[in-house]
Amino acid sequence: MTIQPRTLKGFRDYLPESAGPREWLIERARGVFRSFGYAPIDTPALEYTEVLLGKGGAESDKQLYRFEDHGGRDVGLRFDLTVPFARFAAQHIGQLGTPFKRYHIGPVWRGENTQRGRYREFLQCDFDTIGTESLVADAECATVIHALFKELGQPVKIHVNNRKVLNGVLERLELGEVSVPVLRALDKLAKIGADKVAAEIQAEAGASAAQAREVLVMAALEGSNDEILTALRPLVAGSERGEQGVDELSEVLTAAEAGGVPAGRLLVDVSIARGLDYYTGTIFETFLDALPGIGSCCSGGRYDDLASVYTKQRLPGVGASLGLDRLLAALEELGELPGGGAPAPVFLPLFDGSRVPDYLALAARLRAAGLGVEVYPEARKLGAQLKYADRRGHRLAVVVGDSEWAAGTCQLKDLSSGESEEVSLDGLAEACLARLS
Amino acid sequence: MTIQPRTLKGFRDYLPESAGPREWLIERARGVFRSFGYAPIDTPALEYTEVLLGKGGAESDKQLYRFEDHGGRDVGLRFDLTVPFARFAAQHIGQLGTPFKRYHIGPVWRGENTQRGRYREFLQCDFDTIGTESLVADAECATVIHALFKELGQPVKIHVNNRKVLNGVLERLELGEVSVPVLRALDKLAKIGADKVAAEIQAEAGASAAQAREVLVMAALEGSNDEILTALRPLVAGSERGEQGVDELSEVLTAAEAGGVPAGRLLVDVSIARGLDYYTGTIFETFLDALPGIGSCCSGGRYDDLASVYTKQRLPGVGASLGLDRLLAALEELGELPGGGAPAPVFLPLFDGSRVPDYLALAARLRAAGLGVEVYPEARKLGAQLKYADRRGHRLAVVVGDSEWAAGTCQLKDLSSGESEEVSLDGLAEACLARLS
Repeated sequence: MTIQPRTLKGFRDYLPESAGPREWLIERARGVFRSFGYAPIDTPALEYTEVLLGKGGAESDKQLYRFEDHGGRDVGLRFDLTVPFARFAAQHIGQLGTPFKRYHIGPVWRGENTQRGRYREFLQCDFDTIGTESLVADAECATVIHALFKELGQPVKIHVNNRKVLNGVLERLELGEVSVPVLRALDKLAKIGADKVAAEIQAEAGASAAQAREVLVMAALEGSNDEILTALRPLVAGSERGEQGVDELSEVLTAAEAGGVPAGRLLVDVSIARGLDYYTGTIFETFLDALPGIGSCCSGGRYDDLASVYTKQRLPGVGASLGLDRLLAALEELGELPGGGAPAPVFLPLFDGSRVPDYLALAARLRAAGLGVEVYPEARKLGAQLKYADRRGHRLAVVVGDSEWAAGTCQLKDLSSGESEEVSLDGLAEACLARLS
Repeated sequence: MTIQPRTLKGFRDYLPESAGPREWLIERARGVFRSFGYAPIDTPALEYTEVLLGKGGAESDKQLYRFEDHGGRDVGLRFDLTVPFARFAAQHIGQLGTPFKRYHIGPVWRGENTQRGRYREFLQCDFDTIGTESLVADAECATVIHALFKELGQPVKIHVNNRKVLNGVLERLELGEVSVPVLRALDKLAKIGADKVAAEIQAEAGASAAQAREVLVMAALEGSNDEILTALRPLVAGSERGEQGVDELSEVLTAAEAGGVPAGRLLVDVSIARGLDYYTGTIFETFLDALPGIGSCCSGGRYDDLASVYTKQRLPGVGASLGLDRLLAALEELGELPGGGAPAPVFLPLFDGSRVPDYLALAARLRAAGLGVEVYPEARKLGAQLKYADRRGHRLAVVVGDSEWAAGTCQLKDLSSGESEEVSLDGLAEACLARLS
């Protein structure tokens, strides 16, 4: 009797066709993070429940995979990388020193409803600079986001705002005390429209129709970055916090442009609010030019204190999270998913079992020249082997039969065009490299 | 009140100093796997307990992190990558086709005793070719192992044996029926010595002193591969299985040498037995020249049927597992741990807050030339910033103060030698690249 092979609901296998692109994406992201000096870290999948829920609300509590381990400890699977990073920072910052820049790419688990097409296990990819209040780090965060998507060949628009601007405007409107429900309503602007947001601001925050209208006037500000900043100044005038927010926005824009984010790629957008409690300064959202409708692919911002749950040492910082799954889905929809195809571009069919050492030696020579080469392990008919190569997505096939071995040549076959050419074995590596470049 | 930041017993954080080398190692391994045509896959951390324990013995049962999920399912964290691969293959092989070559690198969890310095969460790194009985795949497995360690700059000796040889010898000694306890005893040869192994063979397998002596004579065979094969032939004569095993060993040696494993790097070693039930043909163990005493860093072999627990389709294959943690510990002990130091080799101190855009623009120019550059985010005293750079392990510092900005130059400082040189900003990228190469 066999056991039925199946995965749990909300979990999935990655076959090569999806694992390959994911790996490609992760390696590109790592390269970009490193080029700015961010260092990798990792934390355990399992932590004390107390540590995981220290800051959490009812939502993360409900979704937590939680159980008792062999030693009777109350443990859970991490549901994000932010909480473990806060715990990690509190524990090790003395040794690490500040400023500390890290990236962390790893799976997280949430036992949430799968009806919305969400998975219960998914990858997160976060990068942060902690231990500094300098806006240079905020500007760098935008620069990293720009560099990430440039590396992926996807132009983006990074929307930037500052929580101090929002709070300053609300202070001036005498809505400072109810900023949480106001911003929660405002966060839905793109989704539900201005009328419903105005109604919610009145209902949930007890604002007047005029106050709600003013909030929406601010959120609707459009124009160049300079025009929006100019329009914001009177809206925050008299609020120290608001004025500081506009100054900060201006400084981040200047520094990010100097750091390589072209004008027109970093846009002030007063309508973004992002979460409610965590962020305290600059906030970012990122939209693909080719597919803005799928939502932000990289979001983040500045916070006053990362790890207050675990330590009295204040750790301000700024960072963002790259939405790997959303991005992979977008690239697939665009037909621009990279990293597919066979891992080794060159396929070497095996004709004659008695020639195995010759085929393997040829493959070794090609690999020594920097080529990825897959040798078919069995001596079968050429047709069957080429069918395998087609399905795998190899780009070139090197066909060497008896007469070719005798002549020191091969047929070099381009598997997409179907064209073949006779090439000497001595010149084969070069010919492959030329065709693949 | 703060919550104490701590990890669970048997779990650990990876700080940059250990996460960097681990990432370096994984990326090198992936490159080698891909160059032979192995494709990446991934499977969920959580599976049905029934799926995980289908084949398992009492040991994996006891160590399993097992609990009931939100839907009342009996689930567990995977304790290796072999069981999930068997389940994966049974489920998807129709779509994937055979032969199928995959690698899989990911964490596994075992609630085992931590006293032996073992961790309850560790990385495994497996590669396999399934769906073929061709010995070309066995030879390729040895070739991949050789290429992996060559890529890491660590010469190794790969010890190879064949379970059919062992079983053939035992058949001839009329110990075929008790091969399991005999091989279990033999597996301890390096650890407990010949006398104790002989005693155990007699005690556990009911063998005579003469039979035990014969087993040890075989296991003690020494010499060149050809000499050992020649000495083995009479020991297996008359056992069809044993003779086939010697032929297979010979064929794998020839093919692997053709595939690029130099003579002297793949050694027949009749004393290795590796596990007892799983392997059925070729078996491998791999020892670092520089540190053989730590044990095998890459082990594996051929099996008759991967997934009989989950499917009636027979899936023979061959593969091995790279011991990442052991290897990292060995490289650290040797002082040859790569991938340490700062992620970005070039450090750019920030002097003057009013010049922030200039520093960021300079960093962008260097990055565009392919250099990793970390900018210090705050305008502090040079000494403090250079201390940071020293601790981080940057290799070069680019010092630009007021007079340098005015002159269009900088001090390029080698942080290991302490030497400085004046370089024009226009020629800076080239100067850095030259010093880093």
